Amino acid sequence: MLPTNDPQLTSFIEIQDQSHFPIQNLPYGVAQPVDGGPSFICTAIGEFVVNLAELENRGFFDGPELQEVTVFQEQRLNSFVALGPAAWTEARSKISHLLRSDTATLRDNHELREEVLIPMREVTMKLPVDVGDYTDFYSSEQHATNVGSMFRDPENALKPNWKHLPVGYHGRASSIVVSGTDIHRPQGQILPPDSDDTPVFGASKLCDFELEMGFLTGPGNEIGQPIPIEQAQEHIFGMVLVNDWSARDIQKWEYQPLGPFLAKNWATSISPWIVTLDALEPFRIAGPRQNPEPLPYLQSRGKWTFDIDLEVHLQAPDMAESHQICKSNAKNLYWNICQQLAHQTITGCNVRPGDLYASGTISGSDPDSYGSMLELSWKGEKPLKFPNGEERTFLQDGDRITMTAYADTEDYRIGFGEVTGKILPARDIAMS
Amino acid sequence: MLPTNDPQLTSFIEIQDQSHFPIQNLPYGVAQPVDGGPSFICTAIGEFVVNLAELENRGFFDGPELQEVTVFQEQRLNSFVALGPAAWTEARSKISHLLRSDTATLRDNHELREEVLIPMREVTMKLPVDVGDYTDFYSSEQHATNVGSMFRDPENALKPNWKHLPVGYHGRASSIVVSGTDIHRPQGQILPPDSDDTPVFGASKLCDFELEMGFLTGPGNEIGQPIPIEQAQEHIFGMVLVNDWSARDIQKWEYQPLGPFLAKNWATSISPWIVTLDALEPFRIAGPRQNPEPLPYLQSRGKWTFDIDLEVHLQAPDMAESHQICKSNAKNLYWNICQQLAHQTITGCNVRPGDLYASGTISGSDPDSYGSMLELSWKGEKPLKFPNGEERTFLQDGDRITMTAYADTEDYRIGFGEVTGKILPARDIAMS
Repeated sequence: MLPTNDPQLTSFIEIQDQSHFPIQNLPYGVAQPVDGGPSFICTAIGEFVVNLAELENRGFFDGPELQEVTVFQEQRLNSFVALGPAAWTEARSKISHLLRSDTATLRDNHELREEVLIPMREVTMKLPVDVGDYTDFYSSEQHATNVGSMFRDPENALKPNWKHLPVGYHGRASSIVVSGTDIHRPQGQILPPDSDDTPVFGASKLCDFELEMGFLTGPGNEIGQPIPIEQAQEHIFGMVLVNDWSARDIQKWEYQPLGPFLAKNWATSISPWIVTLDALEPFRIAGPRQNPEPLPYLQSRGKWTFDIDLEVHLQAPDMAESHQICKSNAKNLYWNICQQLAHQTITGCNVRPGDLYASGTISGSDPDSYGSMLELSWKGEKPLKFPNGEERTFLQDGDRITMTAYADTEDYRIGFGEVTGKILPARDIAMS
Repeated sequence: MLPTNDPQLTSFIEIQDQSHFPIQNLPYGVAQPVDGGPSFICTAIGEFVVNLAELENRGFFDGPELQEVTVFQEQRLNSFVALGPAAWTEARSKISHLLRSDTATLRDNHELREEVLIPMREVTMKLPVDVGDYTDFYSSEQHATNVGSMFRDPENALKPNWKHLPVGYHGRASSIVVSGTDIHRPQGQILPPDSDDTPVFGASKLCDFELEMGFLTGPGNEIGQPIPIEQAQEHIFGMVLVNDWSARDIQKWEYQPLGPFLAKNWATSISPWIVTLDALEPFRIAGPRQNPEPLPYLQSRGKWTFDIDLEVHLQAPDMAESHQICKSNAKNLYWNICQQLAHQTITGCNVRPGDLYASGTISGSDPDSYGSMLELSWKGEKPLKFPNGEERTFLQDGDRITMTAYADTEDYRIGFGEVTGKILPARDIAMS
């Protein structure tokens, strides 16, 4: 049997050139019919979603790992990701086999196809997992250097700890939303530029996106028992694309000494599709040389950096189309996902199935690879100019930000779809 | 009918002098029989827990808010706290009525008493809620001043934002554990005192507790829709006692620029009992005068500071008994719970039933009221001395920390029970 990544594999479903969803991808998500009805766990192939709950109902997942569970009947993927690598491999093999050109089971069964293959335009994608805890790392050296240069000292932009450990902080899990969710501009305390430490209340004027990737844990660990770095991959199910919306003016006033809080708790958008580590295997490359050498618990063997292209597009209400404003790549990360998970748990912190770990903003060395408006406009000093004459330093009401991520072989593209959201005007808040 | 806080109310269950659980308290928790069997939601009265699942089964919760739900059949209190104030009041009234001296229903029904009244020694208390998100504030002025003086500048100990907003950060929800859970000393990166920014790996030498109170939200809000401060109390179910275990050496090296991360993610212990705002109503007092006046969204009306005594006790393996090392009070908080919740949500951040918001370390002005070893020993410069000759700057292996909280009227005491935990030696971690 051909491996599920084999470039020669083809599906009986037509795959458009540059489709994100060839048979080698098979990401996981949760869809709901646009005309109502319950959500269901699915994968994507070409322009279709495949109803895995229905396939499970019909007994197709009959291998040793999956035959006695009903994980695809749920509304979220947490129970499935909790099962671990053997079950993930079994599910992927089964789905791949069913979708192959040379497998008749689904291809030739009209009634079954009607039931399980649903055009993407007929569904709305939902949050794929319930996220228990959300960590946001800060793992792009260029991003940390840019921010450190702007707000602290260009000569000492990186703090002394930065190259010794993957700096991160705990984010807000409740406000993680799926792509397509529009977001009201947040309000809060802001220090006016000319103020002597007296803040005012108002809508954030410095709304921003942050281009990030994130991974999701499968099986967790017991509290008190760290996950050794060489076992990290057994605990990582897959990856999503992340937009960590940020309010820079709120952040600047609030963040000392305990870090970002309200500036980032109003929304974090993720792609509806979780792309598995299996699908991403062809795109693993060696990471940057790490100097100083990390402590042993952070020494990563094997290739755990990903060569995944990343794009950010902006479309304002008066623009006929969206415009690419950033082109970056996941390889612009200094710390890899195994290092991040080993670090997260080294104190004994327990992780759970469905927890999210975002990379931090992924900026490259070219100014057009910077992953936030803060950096692209260099804190507002260099506005972005658009063909219709508009300029942007930070996001305006009505601006839509769409991110996408994909990785190419000679034969196929593995994609994350997109994560998109629009900034809505600040709400009227009744203040007594 | 007498109000549920009336000092004249008595129960047919004997209440010892200074018991934390008179009929005026009626906190909520989750218990499991020590000889096995499923957990059940309960309240406490004297030396007994009262099985609310069994009372619900038998139809005692027959009022308009509770008759059509089965919230007490669950393993956690999240569904009950989600119902809101009308249901909370109804449940409290019903339980209070059933436990009164002059109500025969339970008092005189031997079979029912056997079923629903279980001696506390026959149960183990479990985590009362699944905590979705955990916020840790920093709301004691003395604590923030102490820490700022030690690590930054005694002349400018408080950051400029501190009196304008309740500084806080997002903590780790997965590692919240119930009282009685012992905790392995964490390991991680530590900067040796004489190092030029080269950390070493090892067990934390500066393990600490933090004496905190926390509140739990009931009904949440929609994302994008802040909770106005005057409505905050309708979203707050009750309070718990919190020990936010901390590793000061890990914290010092990692925390810039994004705040505490691993230093606090290894465990946070909470009391098993959630004391409701109804039970705490007699102990609400006016808070400190706030100068500068907060922005309107943080202007709190009514008395929302609590006069609750707090104690911390330490017992080392070689001590015959535990020794009180701190005596503080919840009134040593500058920001109150309504201000904290209004701030948490002002950007539109959504909260959910069972989310936890801790106060930050509660230190008073007297040195023996400081709520952490860091402050009590003034970063190790003033060791605590114990009757058996031992000294402590930070916690040693085998040290047990027990916190308790209670508030007295002339007639009764409302208590939180305790939150206790022991520091176990660091685990052997297999490093490749």
